[in-house]
Amino acid sequence: SKLSIVGAGAVGATMAYAALMRGAARTVALMDINAAKVEAEVLDLQHGIQFMPQARVEGSDDVSVCAGSDVIVVTAGAKQKPGQSRIDLAGDTIGLMRKVLPGLVDVAPDAVYVMVTNPVDVVTYASLKITGLPSHRLFGSGTVLDSSRMRFLLADRAGVAVQNVHAYIAGEHGDTEIPLWSSATIGGVPLLDWPGVRGRAPLSAQDREEIHHEVVNSAYRIIAGKGATNYAIGLAGARIVEAVLDDQHAILPVSSLLDDYYGISDVCLSVPSLVDREGVRETVSTPMSEDELGGLRSSATSLREVARQFGF
Amino acid sequence: SKLSIVGAGAVGATMAYAALMRGAARTVALMDINAAKVEAEVLDLQHGIQFMPQARVEGSDDVSVCAGSDVIVVTAGAKQKPGQSRIDLAGDTIGLMRKVLPGLVDVAPDAVYVMVTNPVDVVTYASLKITGLPSHRLFGSGTVLDSSRMRFLLADRAGVAVQNVHAYIAGEHGDTEIPLWSSATIGGVPLLDWPGVRGRAPLSAQDREEIHHEVVNSAYRIIAGKGATNYAIGLAGARIVEAVLDDQHAILPVSSLLDDYYGISDVCLSVPSLVDREGVRETVSTPMSEDELGGLRSSATSLREVARQFGF
Amino acid sequence: SKLSIVGAGAVGATMAYAALMRGAARTVALMDINAAKVEAEVLDLQHGIQFMPQARVEGSDDVSVCAGSDVIVVTAGAKQKPGQSRIDLAGDTIGLMRKVLPGLVDVAPDAVYVMVTNPVDVVTYASLKITGLPSHRLFGSGTVLDSSRMRFLLADRAGVAVQNVHAYIAGEHGDTEIPLWSSATIGGVPLLDWPGVRGRAPLSAQDREEIHHEVVNSAYRIIAGKGATNYAIGLAGARIVEAVLDDQHAILPVSSLLDDYYGISDVCLSVPSLVDREGVRETVSTPMSEDELGGLRSSATSLREVARQFGF
Amino acid sequence: SKLSIVGAGAVGATMAYAALMRGAARTVALMDINAAKVEAEVLDLQHGIQFMPQARVEGSDDVSVCAGSDVIVVTAGAKQKPGQSRIDLAGDTIGLMRKVLPGLVDVAPDAVYVMVTNPVDVVTYASLKITGLPSHRLFGSGTVLDSSRMRFLLADRAGVAVQNVHAYIAGEHGDTEIPLWSSATIGGVPLLDWPGVRGRAPLSAQDREEIHHEVVNSAYRIIAGKGATNYAIGLAGARIVEAVLDDQHAILPVSSLLDDYYGISDVCLSVPSLVDREGVRETVSTPMSEDELGGLRSSATSLREVARQFGF
Ligand SMILES: NC(=O)c1ccc[n+]([C@@H]2O[C@H](COP(=O)([O-])OP(=O)(O)OC[C@H]3O[C@@H](n4cnc5c(N)ncnc54)[C@H](O)[C@@H]3O)[C@@H](O)[C@H]2O)c1
Ligand SMILES: NC(=O)c1ccc[n+]([C@@H]2O[C@H](COP(=O)([O-])OP(=O)(O)OC[C@H]3O[C@@H](n4cnc5c(N)ncnc54)[C@H](O)[C@@H]3O)[C@@H](O)[C@H]2O)c1
Ligand SMILES: NC(=O)c1ccc[n+]([C@@H]2O[C@H](COP(=O)([O-])OP(=O)(O)OC[C@H]3O[C@@H](n4cnc5c(N)ncnc54)[C@H](O)[C@@H]3O)[C@@H](O)[C@H]2O)c1
Ligand SMILES: NC(=O)c1ccc[n+]([C@@H]2O[C@H](COP(=O)([O-])OP(=O)(O)OC[C@H]3O[C@@H](n4cnc5c(N)ncnc54)[C@H](O)[C@@H]3O)[C@@H](O)[C@H]2O)c1
Repeated sequence: SKLSIVGAGAVGATMAYAALMRGAARTVALMDINAAKVEAEVLDLQHGIQFMPQARVEGSDDVSVCAGSDVIVVTAGAKQKPGQSRIDLAGDTIGLMRKVLPGLVDVAPDAVYVMVTNPVDVVTYASLKITGLPSHRLFGSGTVLDSSRMRFLLADRAGVAVQNVHAYIAGEHGDTEIPLWSSATIGGVPLLDWPGVRGRAPLSAQDREEIHHEVVNSAYRIIAGKGATNYAIGLAGARIVEAVLDDQHAILPVSSLLDDYYGISDVCLSVPSLVDREGVRETVSTPMSEDELGGLRSSATSLREVARQFGF
Repeated sequence: SKLSIVGAGAVGATMAYAALMRGAARTVALMDINAAKVEAEVLDLQHGIQFMPQARVEGSDDVSVCAGSDVIVVTAGAKQKPGQSRIDLAGDTIGLMRKVLPGLVDVAPDAVYVMVTNPVDVVTYASLKITGLPSHRLFGSGTVLDSSRMRFLLADRAGVAVQNVHAYIAGEHGDTEIPLWSSATIGGVPLLDWPGVRGRAPLSAQDREEIHHEVVNSAYRIIAGKGATNYAIGLAGARIVEAVLDDQHAILPVSSLLDDYYGISDVCLSVPSLVDREGVRETVSTPMSEDELGGLRSSATSLREVARQFGF
Repeated sequence: SKLSIVGAGAVGATMAYAALMRGAARTVALMDINAAKVEAEVLDLQHGIQFMPQARVEGSDDVSVCAGSDVIVVTAGAKQKPGQSRIDLAGDTIGLMRKVLPGLVDVAPDAVYVMVTNPVDVVTYASLKITGLPSHRLFGSGTVLDSSRMRFLLADRAGVAVQNVHAYIAGEHGDTEIPLWSSATIGGVPLLDWPGVRGRAPLSAQDREEIHHEVVNSAYRIIAGKGATNYAIGLAGARIVEAVLDDQHAILPVSSLLDDYYGISDVCLSVPSLVDREGVRETVSTPMSEDELGGLRSSATSLREVARQFGF
Repeated sequence: SKLSIVGAGAVGATMAYAALMRGAARTVALMDINAAKVEAEVLDLQHGIQFMPQARVEGSDDVSVCAGSDVIVVTAGAKQKPGQSRIDLAGDTIGLMRKVLPGLVDVAPDAVYVMVTNPVDVVTYASLKITGLPSHRLFGSGTVLDSSRMRFLLADRAGVAVQNVHAYIAGEHGDTEIPLWSSATIGGVPLLDWPGVRGRAPLSAQDREEIHHEVVNSAYRIIAGKGATNYAIGLAGARIVEAVLDDQHAILPVSSLLDDYYGISDVCLSVPSLVDREGVRETVSTPMSEDELGGLRSSATSLREVARQFGF
């Protein structure tokens, strides 16, 4: 199995590291326009091969290094320029995708494509149009990372193992994302009824509000403190890659082209979705409260508007 | 960390194998009255050490091999004799525990004890009385295995990854056990509302009935076909051991002494419980339907009667 | 990737368990003429799926379950009858292979075949003739198990991690096998010059003799104590399968058809060999002392004689 | 078990990530004077907890976060200033250790200390003097990373799995380091006699020279390309931590205070050493050629001179 990661920046290189340590793919290729950077990342990864499961690492500034990939993760990014608005950044990134994607599809026409570059939902939608790939074969990492953040925070407050916390964040990856409290559970107990264990209080509306706030804002805090986020997104990406390469039929909140999901269509945003060797063929109709559904609908509307601004 | 397993039969030896492969403990000790058997199992395990995480394996027919254990799993069994009733088997097993446990508590007074020998719920209750250990420090593996069986069957029918199926079996490990359908979920969707994916039908009442039936009866089918069950219980046991040794606060359906769990007290049976370095300090009040709660109450009544027959 | 294991006895079923726990293959199929047994093993393995990496387990008494395999491990055995000589056992096993292999090659013509059934070297040679497969695509597990046993014993006496002990056993899997002391090393030190650490003595000629003796005889002790050996061979087999499926170019002492290995040809026995997706394309000329080479030559002669007795 | 990492820069944070993914310790604490940075790294690591083995991550700019550690890895660094000579850098780093170490020893008096900050050999020697710790309880990561680099390059050229290449680099971590060719082996064959497999040539003197050159210079190339090295050193550090916490008695080329190692004393440099829960109690007398020994002696002399310049 071959995984290629386009963009060997903080996110791409760390995702390669995580994927290698987890044995997610037999060959991992890195592609970046910065030849010195990609060579350095590949060397550093190769030097750790002794301590990892059997794998091969390669890299280049030439797209041919991605030839024959089973999965391609796109993390290549246009840096936000000082004073640049988010919408301008989206424009730059879409421009970047117009340059990068056609060459990739040429050398890896059968790959499943996972978009990570931000703003991920709009970029995913645009990339579907740019490539003309069947919609199940290109999707965004969406709120897998955000959901993982929320689960950690919930587990930490509740005092239970994170593996027992089941909760999704849906919608846009970003400020308008929606924690699906109404379907969240801890050890079989609806999160909204969680009684509290180990002498801790139940999770109040205020607790949930604080957690929501922290999830939305933690990326900013991390970027302020260290310049980028890379560790958790590296793992989240590797996790998605495994769902594809191992044909897991895993349910993950990735961002795919919706088609009548609670009436929402023609927009990419994250809802619980079945991920397997084909990509995303189906979404899962997790029950939602009125508020949650309302949130999802406004996300959809605003994302559609952004897309329209770029002529999609 | 030191794990001791008492009884190096089909279950005990396989659990040692699973625990070693998963790196669950640094030292694994096996104890069995059959000296030739325990020596053979230890040799066979040691010969595989090259292919496993760092560990030490030892074994003996002398209880001192368990000295200083952090966790002790008891799988020592009295074989069911032809024509012997289940209640007589229970009597024999309790007799066995009277012989085995005091010596163990002598050499490992601070260990957490996990009972696996059947009938596990009654044996756990009796063992608490025999040892006088604080109730959180001795519990039974309960329905962790049964829940794992049910999750596999549900995942298989639904066509999704088993990691996305969350469902517990509660009650007695055995014929009267209760699948907690009302709180089960798949990818955030209540199992009872699961719409079906990949062209498969929802899980009908009949599907659930068949799965319940298969869970209850699969042990019999396996024993008929191969003489014992060992692979899944080996993993289930190793999983419980990890929850203890890694202080996970994991929620697992183990069998512990209930104290006003939905009004049920003074009986050991399985409900979702918090497992950590202290053992089981708390249970989790997973919501139950009337039927489920009724089932739990009858389990409790019949288990209490069995215990009483043996003077507890 | 698909691994099939033919023979769901002590060895075959445990190897499936080890391969599943290690994530060695995405699909593991078991085939055995004993339909009840194979069904029971498959159920027991499936019930543990929740605790293992993503995989699918299937089984049948019909050879079609092995269709399309990438690797097939043969552990199907003819039990040694009371009073039966080893040579008669060999005859029975070869008879079994004549029945089993053609059907396998029909449904999995491109698989790599790994023979485990004893006497493994003769069975491997006969199986090459029976199937007419290219010699690199069928080989025996050979002395991978024996080498692992020796490494454990050496590490245990020397007081160092087993990962730092590098030593092979070559020749016949069985009584005439040859520990390659002259090329063995511990942490870069030739084993014959090992000075001893942690207050322990160097490894004397007597130590080596005892270890050799223990390796050769431990299978007998284990079989006497528990009726079969399964844990270490299960791991050794899974290790070989990984070398093939992950195209590792790993050097393992497997039993393949020699062609002028130190002048030895036309016999299957174990020497350090390169194992990858093609099977065994090459052996490695590990240096040997006169004694070691002499031992290898007598192994070859006696194995050739056995083969001749069966008309090969 | 608790691992603390002092310095949450490129190396320290990545080592925490690697250690967490490998399950090396139950608690990982990060300490850095840059409070915003350490908080950001901790958040990013925590957000990935869902995809890792059970663990707890904490961090602070206060040394008390390291209290009660079992192992402390020191990666805190003084950045090389423009125009600053290596010897001046050493001075600055030693100054840093004088500030940092006493507080650590106060809160974690029983920890094993692993130094990573460069120039690692001199820093290790100075740190022993500064702390007065018993010499086995403080050592440097030494040439574990360099050896891993060399093994990758050798495996890559030879066309075999890296697990079959056994070779150490000894001496100073840096320009004067010495590849121990004379004791290196591949699959039981002395590297100097390796015949070549898969149609590749043996490893000529020129090949070895090139590999040596590449090992010594790759850090420079990586730093030029990406600003730091972090992935391989993160794994190498995690590997050393495991050797300590799991009491492995593993043989690793770490930098410890030598006492008559081939006549060399009173200097810290890397030779194959036994690493376990006590740290480094013993070195291993791997045989060396005249040239190799000569190289080791000059390393010792020059390192001793540097130490003397700082008054040790
Ligand atoms: N979706 C998520 O959950 C998530 C999380 C974190 C980061 N991100 C996004 O990931 C992206 C990458 O972040 P980063 O921190 O790694 O940024 P970065 O600047 O460190 O790396 C981006 C890399 O892309 C390379 N690149 C630019 N143009 C390229 C091209 N045409 N072809 C190949 N490579 C090219 C650059 O050389 C650089 O190495 C950003 O858009 C960021 O917002 C998304
Ligand atoms: N709770 C569960 O989910 C579950 C699942 C499977 C099996 N089991 C139970 O586990 C038990 C063991 O099953 P098995 O298949 O391994 O049986 P087994 O007969 O193969 O092994 C039992 C072992 O206990 C040993 N033993 C007997 N008396 C002993 C003593 N006083 N001290 C030490 N060892 C002693 C025997 O020598 C034997 O090796 C049975 O009671 C079985 O019903 C429980
Ligand atoms: N090479 C080694 O290092 C090594 C190590 C251990 C065991 N072994 C050998 O492995 C073999 C198996 O040992 P075991 O302990 O598992 O024996 P076992 O008797 O437990 O299992 C053998 C299985 O083969 C099945 N079988 C018989 N004929 C078959 C056929 N025609 N098709 C499919 N299945 C068939 C039987 O039903 C049985 O389940 C033996 O020959 C043993 O000597 C080799
Ligand atoms: N031995 C090896 O094999 C090896 C390999 C790679 C790097 N290194 C060395 O590791 C060190 C760290 O490298 P890096 O790339 O992570 O550097 P870095 O600059 O990214 O990180 C150093 C960190 O140390 C922190 N720090 C400074 N003073 C401190 C103090 N008093 N207490 C706590 N933290 C303090 C800084 O705030 C910074 O975050 C360097 O000396 C480097 O040369 C060694």
